[in-house]
Order: sequence, then structure tokens, then C-alpha cells
Amino acid sequence: MRLLEDRIRKDGVVKGNDILKGDSFLNHQIDQLLADEMGKEFFRLFGDENADKILTIEASGIAVAVMTAKHFGKPLVFAKKSRTANLSDEVWTAKAFSFTHKTENTVMVSKQYLREGERVLLVDDFLANGCALRALRDIVVQAGAIPVGAGVVIEKAFQPGGDELRKEGLRIESLARISAMSEEKGVEFC
Amino acid sequence: MRLLEDRIRKDGVVKGNDILKGDSFLNHQIDQLLADEMGKEFFRLFGDENADKILTIEASGIAVAVMTAKHFGKPLVFAKKSRTANLSDEVWTAKAFSFTHKTENTVMVSKQYLREGERVLLVDDFLANGCALRALRDIVVQAGAIPVGAGVVIEKAFQPGGDELRKEGLRIESLARISAMSEEKGVEFC
Repeated sequence: MRLLEDRIRKDGVVKGNDILKGDSFLNHQIDQLLADEMGKEFFRLFGDENADKILTIEASGIAVAVMTAKHFGKPLVFAKKSRTANLSDEVWTAKAFSFTHKTENTVMVSKQYLREGERVLLVDDFLANGCALRALRDIVVQAGAIPVGAGVVIEKAFQPGGDELRKEGLRIESLARISAMSEEKGVEFC
Repeated sequence: MRLLEDRIRKDGVVKGNDILKGDSFLNHQIDQLLADEMGKEFFRLFGDENADKILTIEASGIAVAVMTAKHFGKPLVFAKKSRTANLSDEVWTAKAFSFTHKTENTVMVSKQYLREGERVLLVDDFLANGCALRALRDIVVQAGAIPVGAGVVIEKAFQPGGDELRKEGLRIESLARISAMSEEKGVEFC
């Protein structure tokens, strides 16, 4: 998505060879127009999948995901993160290691909000090692629901998560795919 | 706001005399149409305040706040919560005790995204003891910016936060104000 690639070139901040900060438009301050356009683009890409629900994970995926939900005309569910395992029978859980925070989180969705047979579109802001997206997909599968695909804002295509999940059969559409990045050269797109 | 009051009556779950769960439409699953309507209502209420920016706190305030940002045509900033004090000079911080989670959080906003003189509308999902809203207001004031008001989805008006903050001069508009609630009688609105 050209609008997003231009914005990443302009405002993204590269740290080392693998950290991209999108704090000024995506992860801390959110450009509401860009978020709306990205939601529209996810609907263009996945509109024919007849999703019943959009599923993301707190916190920085929520803004784009609720805009996506608006374009689909379907509700959003956001998975909650907790560092403590929640043993309630009433939630689906999966573990996800956060490379950003260096912690293992338990990702949880109440069983009330994911039902057998529902068609679920996953949305997240970043895809690198794929831990968060895998946890969301696993929760959908546990619920007997159908992960119809994943809309990702920025994929670090030089990290293995996207390819692994695609090989496992998940349709992923990333609005920007980064092939390489460095502080000197900035970001290169696929 | 009638639409919201009706929804709380229909789908809100009261626990004891002071916990209201809005998990099916606000805090876990989000009704995207209701979120959009609430954003529109905040714009109707505060549109004349010429806000430069919307400020909320992660995670469950983000959906309504980004819809509010869309109606204002202005960016959203969401404050981050951390249980560890962050000593960086580059963030404004305030402490907020979470009664829900029984933890004290440090609430943080990067100095880059709140500038002196900016007019900032606060948005949050719940107002009870007022800790989160007070932390957001304090951060705005620290930054030399102007808190033009606070749009709250659900105010528990029988708890002191709203009245205290109003006495301190903050204009608060709550879309639903609850005067009393119990498991037996449900929710009563002001």
C-alpha cells in the first residue's frame, strides 16, 4: 500500500537492523485517516471472505482493527494479554513470546466471543516472528472457528514468521513488506 | 446517550454493587457501529473546543478514541501503561492506581506527541475513581498543553472521580451516567 510505504519512509525510525518504530503514526500516536484507509484496504483484500468477526490483540492493533471492523460492518474482538496464566474454563488461551518486551504472555479470548464455525479475520500491526499472529490463529482454531486470513500492517519479511504461517496455510496480506532495513539505508520494501 | 443506555441495560453485566462489565460491546468485543456513534457524539459535544489531538489510555479506550479522532479529523495518542517506572527524560509520566487490576501503573506519553499549547480532548471508557483520567489530565498539564475536556463512555456517578475532577475544573461529558446498580435491580441512570 503506497500510502503506508511512503509514511514508513518518511516517519518510520529504524534502530539497528531489525527494529522499526512507527510511534508517530501507528503505535503511540495514530494517524486516524491512515488507520481508516488501512481498514478500507483490508476490506478490499478480504471482503469476499465473509468474515463474521475481526480479531486482534491489545493494544496497538486495536485502532486499525476497529476501522477494519467498521468497513466490514462486523464486530471486533481484541485478545487480552496477561503475564499470568488464567486457568478459567471460560477463556481460550495461547502463549506468545513478545520479542519487544522480552516476556511470555498468555493471550486470552473469552469463549463467549468466538463461536464454532465463525469466520474470523485476524488483524495485527506488526508481523516478524509471528508469535502474536500464531497465538491468535491457534485460539480461533481451538474455538472451532475458521481463520479466514490475516491482515498485517507491516511485515518484516526478512524474519521468518510470515513465511512459516503461510506454509501452514494461513492467507496473510501485509500492507507493507520490508525486505531489509538499516539505520544507514533506511527501509527497503519487497 | 440513549443508544448506549439501552445497550448497557441489555448487555451490561452487573457484579456486586460496583462492577459493570461491558465485555460484549465495549471492553473485549467491540460493537464497531456503537463505537463510531459514540465518536460522533463526542464530536457533537466537544467539536467547538478546537481540539488538536485526542488522548486516551491503552487498551480498551482505544477503539472509541480512534473513532472520535476520525470525527474530529485529528490524530489520536494513546498513553502506555507500565508497571515499572520509566525514567527516560523523553516521556511524561503520571501514576494511576487501577482498581480493576489492583496494581499501580505508570502512565506514559512520549514528549514528542504532546506539545505546549496543544488543545487535547481526553477520552476513556470508564470513569469511577478517576485515577486514569486524572493521570491523563496531569500529563497534558505537565506538557504545557490544555485539557479541553474529557469524553467518557460510562461514568459511575456514585463514585467520586467525576465530581472531584469537575470541581478541579475539567469539563467532563459522560455518554451514560450510572446513579446506582445492583445484581438484583440492574443499572439506574442519572
